[in-house]
Amino acid sequence: MRKNSIEVCLSPALYEYHRNVDSIVVVIDTLRASSAICSAFANGAVRLLPVSTVEEAREMKKKGFIVAAERDGYVLDFADFGNSPFNFTAERVKGKTVAYSTTNGTRTIELASGAYMIVIGSFLNITALSDWLNEQERDIVLLCAGWKNKVNIEDSFYAGALCNRLMENNKFFTDCDSAKIVMDMWSLGKENPLEYIDKAAQRRRLRDKGLDDCLAFCHKPDSTDVIPVCSEGEIVNLNKVKP
Amino acid sequence: MRKNSIEVCLSPALYEYHRNVDSIVVVIDTLRASSAICSAFANGAVRLLPVSTVEEAREMKKKGFIVAAERDGYVLDFADFGNSPFNFTAERVKGKTVAYSTTNGTRTIELASGAYMIVIGSFLNITALSDWLNEQERDIVLLCAGWKNKVNIEDSFYAGALCNRLMENNKFFTDCDSAKIVMDMWSLGKENPLEYIDKAAQRRRLRDKGLDDCLAFCHKPDSTDVIPVCSEGEIVNLNKVKP
Repeated sequence: MRKNSIEVCLSPALYEYHRNVDSIVVVIDTLRASSAICSAFANGAVRLLPVSTVEEAREMKKKGFIVAAERDGYVLDFADFGNSPFNFTAERVKGKTVAYSTTNGTRTIELASGAYMIVIGSFLNITALSDWLNEQERDIVLLCAGWKNKVNIEDSFYAGALCNRLMENNKFFTDCDSAKIVMDMWSLGKENPLEYIDKAAQRRRLRDKGLDDCLAFCHKPDSTDVIPVCSEGEIVNLNKVKP
Repeated sequence: MRKNSIEVCLSPALYEYHRNVDSIVVVIDTLRASSAICSAFANGAVRLLPVSTVEEAREMKKKGFIVAAERDGYVLDFADFGNSPFNFTAERVKGKTVAYSTTNGTRTIELASGAYMIVIGSFLNITALSDWLNEQERDIVLLCAGWKNKVNIEDSFYAGALCNRLMENNKFFTDCDSAKIVMDMWSLGKENPLEYIDKAAQRRRLRDKGLDDCLAFCHKPDSTDVIPVCSEGEIVNLNKVKP
């Protein structure tokens, strides 16, 4: 079996055409789920429990968990806080388990559940993640959460950044047109990521809702070396579970 | 109802998220179906009958039609010829009806069948098509045929070229991230389209099969002013049906 291929899946609705049970899937939802998840572990969370539906999130609250939950950028009324990475402060999450539900992010994680391994990628952990991926002998699928199954700019752009890093050494190869498209996006925007993603529909949505305070933070590379990994219904920090 | 929006759908598998029954859908399969269809009308074909399956194509042959049919670039054994635009010569198609089946192209046309109107876009007719679209008061969906539901470079790149043309006047608007992505691709490749699409997987497939003789032809703008339009199970030349 050929290893070390890279595929980029631009939307959850395309995942069945990129699915590879032997691969490591990197789930990407930069604005804001994957940035928030990285922040949670950077600030000492022990584990996140992703839940898909509002009802499941409500049940977790009743069971006494801290609940981070939003839909379309708005915090659900029963939740402790929403999906901004700034919400996952050490004060709130250090040493804790947090139930977590977002519009796209958690559904995308569930979609990839048959893969060999699922990790979470954002600019916050891009170097730690790409260094770790470089050490594996696996195919890699970069899975963009998109927006309600449509392709979005911000996740594609990050996929381009990560793909570009991985392709810099000769270990990986790609036959995937989407990988080449997102690397082109990265080449256009790498000098000024915030300017590049300014045209993204999600950028406008967050601005309209006053939720765009985290934009610079979400595009600043390497604020943490955590690698969130999804396993058996929960997300933990890979660095804490390694032998 | 808002009009004159542009959406770009990067794969048939994403069409349900871009579907708009009031829109004009431009079907794009530049290598090679939409280029072949434009060539057929440029050379005087009266109509094309798109068929999806190999069996349907075989039935059309039995009924006495000229049949153009391929799968994965190879001519089906019972067909008169395949999918190269060079096959649709005036000698073969002038004044004729041709049954036509390709890997992606005809299936993509069927997918869009609920739309207000379906037309075929390629570099061969890009100015005629964009001028005509500019005269309409409709939303527009650019539907890329892709490759077996994966996003491809060549159709996305053409969508970028057409989208860029349409956005040059202030009539149209777009909120679609995919539209902005493909316009970025066009901005990178417009000076040398053949060089840009050289990295496309389909470029390599055609080269491997010795089917890449039509590459330059498929990327040369404005060799014809035909606008193929799909209606009631057939494709005709819009310029010939206008009152």
